[in-house]
Amino acid sequence: MGLPKTPVLTTDCVIFDSGGRVLLIRRGHPPYAGSYALPGGFVEIGETVEEACRREALEETGIKVDVLRLVGIYSDPARDPRGHTVSAAYVTILPFAVTPKAGSDAAGAEWVDNWRSVELAFDHAQILGDADALLRAPPR
Amino acid sequence: MGLPKTPVLTTDCVIFDSGGRVLLIRRGHPPYAGSYALPGGFVEIGETVEEACRREALEETGIKVDVLRLVGIYSDPARDPRGHTVSAAYVTILPFAVTPKAGSDAAGAEWVDNWRSVELAFDHAQILGDADALLRAPPR
Repeated sequence: MGLPKTPVLTTDCVIFDSGGRVLLIRRGHPPYAGSYALPGGFVEIGETVEEACRREALEETGIKVDVLRLVGIYSDPARDPRGHTVSAAYVTILPFAVTPKAGSDAAGAEWVDNWRSVELAFDHAQILGDADALLRAPPR
Repeated sequence: MGLPKTPVLTTDCVIFDSGGRVLLIRRGHPPYAGSYALPGGFVEIGETVEEACRREALEETGIKVDVLRLVGIYSDPARDPRGHTVSAAYVTILPFAVTPKAGSDAAGAEWVDNWRSVELAFDHAQILGDADALLRAPPR
């Protein structure tokens, strides 16, 4: 196609429940194997980034998410030890209680109450803090 | 590195002046050669997306932009005839008048007053409309 090589595109999904808990996975593979992380992964050619975000959330946690709100683009070249990845992060609030079921690359999936005090992989603490701030901002 | 192939990452820059004009280029190369378009281009490995956005604006129009606000992620697999590209679009308002100077891949660069009625390449009319709506929304 003659298109240049660019950073690898990923997406992360911040899922809150109505009680302020966050759905986190335990990473099944390096880097950060065993660490808490947001559900997410690589965007496939042929899907939109929102589709990739919903697909990864479903694959890793068994939970279907619908409306997504863009939190930001995270593109520090050093954010991923494997190479330059850029993540588009989205947030959603799940209006009802669902029990997650770890799948795909996730070794675990759980609702986390004290998410401010757990250690998260990559720049996911930053993403999660930004998502929380976005939801706390007064609506337009 | 073992990272999968993902859509190609691009960035577009919506630059308004304080009078509501938009800085548009004329594309120098296919696709859409000769069409009006937003300044922008491919993100390079090793730079942040915001750095890429500023670099492309400078290369194509000679104009330096500073603070960027994220407008959205545009990822329809059909948005670019060359293959699946995903654009992170940013907007800025230039507080002072600067005369653009076309460079790099741009065959022209000019401030456009009636931007709502010109035909734009790719999904740039959508991006421009979204950027305008974002700036018109009441501040948080």
